[in-house]
Amino acid sequence: MGDLRVVGHGLVPPPRERKHLLSIADLDRDDVERLLATARSFALSQARETKKLPTLRGRLVLNLFYESSTRTSSSFEVAAKRLSADTLTVKAAGSSVDKGESLRDTAQTLAAYEPDVIVVRHPEVGAARFVADATSARVVNAGDGKHQHPTQALLDLYTMREALGHLDGVQVAIVGDALHSRVARSLVQALRLVGAEATLVGPPSLLVPELAPSTHDIAAISDADVVYVLRMQRERMLEGANFVPSLREYAARWGVTPERLRPGQLVMHPGPMNRGVEIDARVADSDTSLVVDQVQSGLVMRMAVLYDLLTAGPVPVEAAVEVA
Amino acid sequence: MGDLRVVGHGLVPPPRERKHLLSIADLDRDDVERLLATARSFALSQARETKKLPTLRGRLVLNLFYESSTRTSSSFEVAAKRLSADTLTVKAAGSSVDKGESLRDTAQTLAAYEPDVIVVRHPEVGAARFVADATSARVVNAGDGKHQHPTQALLDLYTMREALGHLDGVQVAIVGDALHSRVARSLVQALRLVGAEATLVGPPSLLVPELAPSTHDIAAISDADVVYVLRMQRERMLEGANFVPSLREYAARWGVTPERLRPGQLVMHPGPMNRGVEIDARVADSDTSLVVDQVQSGLVMRMAVLYDLLTAGPVPVEAAVEVA
Amino acid sequence: MGDLRVVGHGLVPPPRERKHLLSIADLDRDDVERLLATARSFALSQARETKKLPTLRGRLVLNLFYESSTRTSSSFEVAAKRLSADTLTVKAAGSSVDKGESLRDTAQTLAAYEPDVIVVRHPEVGAARFVADATSARVVNAGDGKHQHPTQALLDLYTMREALGHLDGVQVAIVGDALHSRVARSLVQALRLVGAEATLVGPPSLLVPELAPSTHDIAAISDADVVYVLRMQRERMLEGANFVPSLREYAARWGVTPERLRPGQLVMHPGPMNRGVEIDARVADSDTSLVVDQVQSGLVMRMAVLYDLLTAGPVPVEAAVEVA
Repeated sequence: MGDLRVVGHGLVPPPRERKHLLSIADLDRDDVERLLATARSFALSQARETKKLPTLRGRLVLNLFYESSTRTSSSFEVAAKRLSADTLTVKAAGSSVDKGESLRDTAQTLAAYEPDVIVVRHPEVGAARFVADATSARVVNAGDGKHQHPTQALLDLYTMREALGHLDGVQVAIVGDALHSRVARSLVQALRLVGAEATLVGPPSLLVPELAPSTHDIAAISDADVVYVLRMQRERMLEGANFVPSLREYAARWGVTPERLRPGQLVMHPGPMNRGVEIDARVADSDTSLVVDQVQSGLVMRMAVLYDLLTAGPVPVEAAVEVA
Repeated sequence: MGDLRVVGHGLVPPPRERKHLLSIADLDRDDVERLLATARSFALSQARETKKLPTLRGRLVLNLFYESSTRTSSSFEVAAKRLSADTLTVKAAGSSVDKGESLRDTAQTLAAYEPDVIVVRHPEVGAARFVADATSARVVNAGDGKHQHPTQALLDLYTMREALGHLDGVQVAIVGDALHSRVARSLVQALRLVGAEATLVGPPSLLVPELAPSTHDIAAISDADVVYVLRMQRERMLEGANFVPSLREYAARWGVTPERLRPGQLVMHPGPMNRGVEIDARVADSDTSLVVDQVQSGLVMRMAVLYDLLTAGPVPVEAAVEVA
Repeated sequence: MGDLRVVGHGLVPPPRERKHLLSIADLDRDDVERLLATARSFALSQARETKKLPTLRGRLVLNLFYESSTRTSSSFEVAAKRLSADTLTVKAAGSSVDKGESLRDTAQTLAAYEPDVIVVRHPEVGAARFVADATSARVVNAGDGKHQHPTQALLDLYTMREALGHLDGVQVAIVGDALHSRVARSLVQALRLVGAEATLVGPPSLLVPELAPSTHDIAAISDADVVYVLRMQRERMLEGANFVPSLREYAARWGVTPERLRPGQLVMHPGPMNRGVEIDARVADSDTSLVVDQVQSGLVMRMAVLYDLLTAGPVPVEAAVEVA
């Protein structure tokens, strides 16, 4: 039988190196620096009138999203299109039964089309790794439960470096629900990798002291170069009164307001924002908010990640400025 | 901080003229004539075996739809693809809370990708203008509440001119619920701009005398060159018995039947049709129905609108006939 | 009026031959052989690093799906993209009222864009034929009720021939609910066309003796070259206790387990699988399972079908290996 199956489509595909981006923990500092530099090359190309590059012409990027996320899925989709790749976005319902089983079959089905990359978001920890193991595809983790969201952390590093000029020694206060946040988990690891430092700030029940130095005192944010505000999941409020007493009390004690910031202090948020809860509207819309910059950084960083998985070495300058 | 943010992606995009299509009221007669002529150029190209043109290669058209509309969203999507633009269609749920807030954040997020055009449909009056003000994108209004639907009016003008050979002095009877109709509002303005005349016909409670001469007498349609039938929103029947007594009575008194038309009298409908309510099935499917022509006109008019926003001057003949 | 309407977009499109793929019954053996050969040519191209071919550049393939089906719709979408066609996928809600009416209007609207092919899936028997009759488009039936699913049967033939080297005289046992299955119906016809033979195996209430020799004895599968397992629709269990007593009893009496198979016996399933019901997980994941091969075959067979409808004659070898 083995032989028969090898016959398959008549030819065995040539072996190729398989790379994934599943977790910040898989990267070393050189990897991060390379991705930051590649993203910057692509940012230059995005300042042109025609932003599309021929870099990944003929490739297929498949987005498999088990959680709705206009923000992240559209970012990956535009990133792929800007590099001339084709895209297929599959929004899976994520039924409550046999989820693991269904993920395997769906991933194997989609992998049979031999897309160049599968981008996966799934509510369960380890889902992206599962897809990487169950298929022969290159996989990007676009969020797996409360575990990892590595492209978010990379785009945040990029945004900070563009704003501050460097990352080494930068102090970042991460405010909010770190306990349930894949964003916080990935970001703390990424900051450490580049010599920056994170402090967690929030209700004691939502801090993770083993992840990073933690404090419940919101006044601590004034020491930071960047205040990174996590999205408060309204579901948390409802499901466990032991986490936070109420949205109103959360906003009063840990909401990031103009009064709690130093003048000119930079503020970031992965979006979508709950204005008036974790972030004051005046902060969200101020000149010191980098929220829109983060979205722009997300695009070029995802271009960099796709490029990096599908090619070898740093992006050549000429490729980055060539017009589609 | 301002300086830091300018650094952004390292380069400031070159200034470019920003144009929108938000309302027929923004256009003058020259604009309409130019769009009609451009649409006709594109119609010539659509008669070829290969219909795709390279005109907008490398561009990105983003559709942001807060109301479901296969008809309009697919028309814009095909128009963009026929011009070789990439497309991204975002169907937003349109939650009932904080809608304005969410529209702003969503629009700013999507605008951060720097699409060449954002096409917006939203249930609230002024939504497209809001997106134009809140972002740096070029915006096309694909319907905002009961306010405006300018590409519908333009495609209707195009359809009438193709069928009649001219627009000046054309008499159009608009039958149905003008009160709640962005289509009626846009069309009356557009007809006036090109020297044609509209009469509103329907139940007194659904007429808008300040918009155009109005009558409740369905016999008045026999004077028109074109009978334009509005879609009867079934929701209206349910929500307010004061608008119309019942579907059956509406059909009996204002339904457009063969008996109420002159032989050969042209009939239009923006779709989707309620056969047996506002339009008799025999009318809908007759040789004098321009309904399918309207769909074809919609495609080439939306190609013209996208082209017009993204380039200067009328479409060169050679561009219109060049093969992809 | 007729004349006026002909004016339409100013030019009458040149007449072209219109072909459809609505049913296996429309094909003769030469057609099937040609499609199998074309699919094989495309399979060679899919073994390359860059899998995209320029074959259908500038064309538009429109998918109109009234039933949700990630599997089939994504297969057609990737097939079209691999041939450089543009795609538009419309997922229609399929309301319970006026379905026929709505299908006609929707199909006519979408056909007005003059897509090169419309791929239709619909819960009603005859829907694809209806679209072919109501429009001027070329139509592929991607499943119409319990009637036909011709591309599934063709990809299954392709998979069997790749695995066995030939089709003539091949014995296929089709296990499960043949009564409600468009897959079974199409496959039996297709097998007959190429000289292979089918036997139906399952509960007496779900067999169709007039379609093919039938038996309720699961032991009969051991004679077959290929055991083809149908998906057990869980809905059937609920709606009529007269069809099958329970999932558990179905699995016990007709589930395909390792014990019921000869060593090395090939197993196929159109997916998605209910592991533990109609197919044992050990069978689904064994080396003798061709399930993933079927997905790969589906891609190249749908490329072949699109190619065949839009061009004349067999695919030239050079076209199949040209790089995008």
